[in-house]
Amino acid sequence: MEFNNTQIRLAERPIGSPNETTWKITEENINGESLLEGQVMIQNEFLSIDPAMRGWLNDAKSYIKPVEIGEVMRSLGIGKVLASKSVNYKVGDSVSAAIGVQQYCILSEKEITKVDVSEFKPEVYLGTLGMSGLTAYFGMLDTGEPKAGETVVISGAAGAVGSVAGQIAKIKGCKVVGIAGGADKCKYVTEVLGFDACIDYKEEGSLRGKLKAVCPDGIDVYFDNVGGDILDTVLGLIRKKARIVICGAISQYNSTQMQGPKNYLSLLVNRAKMEGIVVFDNAHKYHEGIAQMKVWIKEGILTDEVYLREGGVLAFPEVLMELFAGKNTGKMVLAV
Amino acid sequence: MEFNNTQIRLAERPIGSPNETTWKITEENINGESLLEGQVMIQNEFLSIDPAMRGWLNDAKSYIKPVEIGEVMRSLGIGKVLASKSVNYKVGDSVSAAIGVQQYCILSEKEITKVDVSEFKPEVYLGTLGMSGLTAYFGMLDTGEPKAGETVVISGAAGAVGSVAGQIAKIKGCKVVGIAGGADKCKYVTEVLGFDACIDYKEEGSLRGKLKAVCPDGIDVYFDNVGGDILDTVLGLIRKKARIVICGAISQYNSTQMQGPKNYLSLLVNRAKMEGIVVFDNAHKYHEGIAQMKVWIKEGILTDEVYLREGGVLAFPEVLMELFAGKNTGKMVLAV
Repeated sequence: MEFNNTQIRLAERPIGSPNETTWKITEENINGESLLEGQVMIQNEFLSIDPAMRGWLNDAKSYIKPVEIGEVMRSLGIGKVLASKSVNYKVGDSVSAAIGVQQYCILSEKEITKVDVSEFKPEVYLGTLGMSGLTAYFGMLDTGEPKAGETVVISGAAGAVGSVAGQIAKIKGCKVVGIAGGADKCKYVTEVLGFDACIDYKEEGSLRGKLKAVCPDGIDVYFDNVGGDILDTVLGLIRKKARIVICGAISQYNSTQMQGPKNYLSLLVNRAKMEGIVVFDNAHKYHEGIAQMKVWIKEGILTDEVYLREGGVLAFPEVLMELFAGKNTGKMVLAV
Repeated sequence: MEFNNTQIRLAERPIGSPNETTWKITEENINGESLLEGQVMIQNEFLSIDPAMRGWLNDAKSYIKPVEIGEVMRSLGIGKVLASKSVNYKVGDSVSAAIGVQQYCILSEKEITKVDVSEFKPEVYLGTLGMSGLTAYFGMLDTGEPKAGETVVISGAAGAVGSVAGQIAKIKGCKVVGIAGGADKCKYVTEVLGFDACIDYKEEGSLRGKLKAVCPDGIDVYFDNVGGDILDTVLGLIRKKARIVICGAISQYNSTQMQGPKNYLSLLVNRAKMEGIVVFDNAHKYHEGIAQMKVWIKEGILTDEVYLREGGVLAFPEVLMELFAGKNTGKMVLAV
């Protein structure tokens, strides 16, 4: 029960985009014989690749502490129990935890959650039934508060969170318009996810003009994953009492010069609110969200697809940049 | 009952700050004999000078329609009834209305509200008991939701709205810190208004450092009247679940290049919200707010002072620029 464990560690904090000097590869022995009481040894199977990872690399106060220099890169993931000194976990159990960008890990039973893989593939617990889906669920329902008949706009519509957020707004009876980069993604958003429309922000022409054409009465809810110019454009088109959910700002994470929303006074004119969300605040309600989304997946009105990328832990630096380049549709997952 | 009526009209829409070509002076005859049924003729006594006036000069969608070129400049104010064809108003009544920057006006009874000048001076109905005070009252209580023991920061603390907003937060048991421009204003804010501290943003040194020193645990509520760099600085110091009330952005109104809050992602990290307010939405509750504030004024815990500027309607262009230069403490009122 001894393995060679390949790991990706943070070598130095990037300024702007991560590059080849950001990471270092290490190899360690890991031994399942030496577990302490309550610990389990896990074989990592799937890593969740998230925009939030970029934020964890900054030495700044945030909702979670930064990854330290020299530490194994943090990653949520799914793995299988290989050895257990916990009465709650047995060999072969599938578990979800912050397993890190490595092949194996040893964690305390308090740090892991069992996942039921009898009905859903394990990687779905990183997507719709994981943090991405729960972020969409609570962000859209509790902060966006969509009402039937309202117009909801989602940026990063083809992404892990946006795809679920928009489908939930559709389920609630809203008109849902996505914004995504590229014709293929827009096609995915309307044809696979069932949004009413999707605008390709990379295409020539005025985003404002196109949004206005599909949202002639203005925008009631905006679920923002991207920030930057797109946020500003939407702010110019909101309706009275609009709700803007700040879920992320992928356009800004690798930027060294942050861009604030110049149109923020539209909040005043329209008595609108802009509110930030962090999924962890809903930990006490995760079970509710997961139960509801399982029902919707079974009814065929919510996707459980993930974007599975092969390549193992060594592919991590490249896959993270693919995420920022927007290569994925839906949740980006790296198979270990 | 015929008078020569001096008026200030909008001659052209300003780009940036209003200047000598923005306004034109006109003289008209106004005749109290020709009133229609339900109309009253008013002698204008006090004009409310408001930062919002700058917004009314732009040809842009807002919470109220712009002043048209050639129109008498819009202004709230207080006047006395000189002639009446309304059964509800008699000669000598004091009334509040959008009377305009002129010496006299004729309005329908539907456009005016009687004010009781037996207990308070008429101009108080433009300050603490007028739109400024009501903006502070509903903005602070309904949107800021201050709880006893919390830390509340107010920009434009010596201004018409900020001065009242901060006193209300004090009444609710908060620690209240003002931000104002100049040592005299800061002294007014702490000594006259009773804020716990006031920071002079014009003084040398880091605003962030000074704010951090007086708000060591961070900021729970920020009532923003100014926007710009000060908003950004406060965003960097908010606590989890902070509420940011966007009441105005006086630093930006004459700007041709809007500055968005670069630190807006602090809303995400801190699950905070930023919400715009417009006082008119509370019209059905004005009486409640006024009744409560009258009690507080009588108890001596809320100021009813105004900053009365002599000079008549011809001084209006100059007085408006004095407002933007921050000459006033408390509500700027122009005596007609």
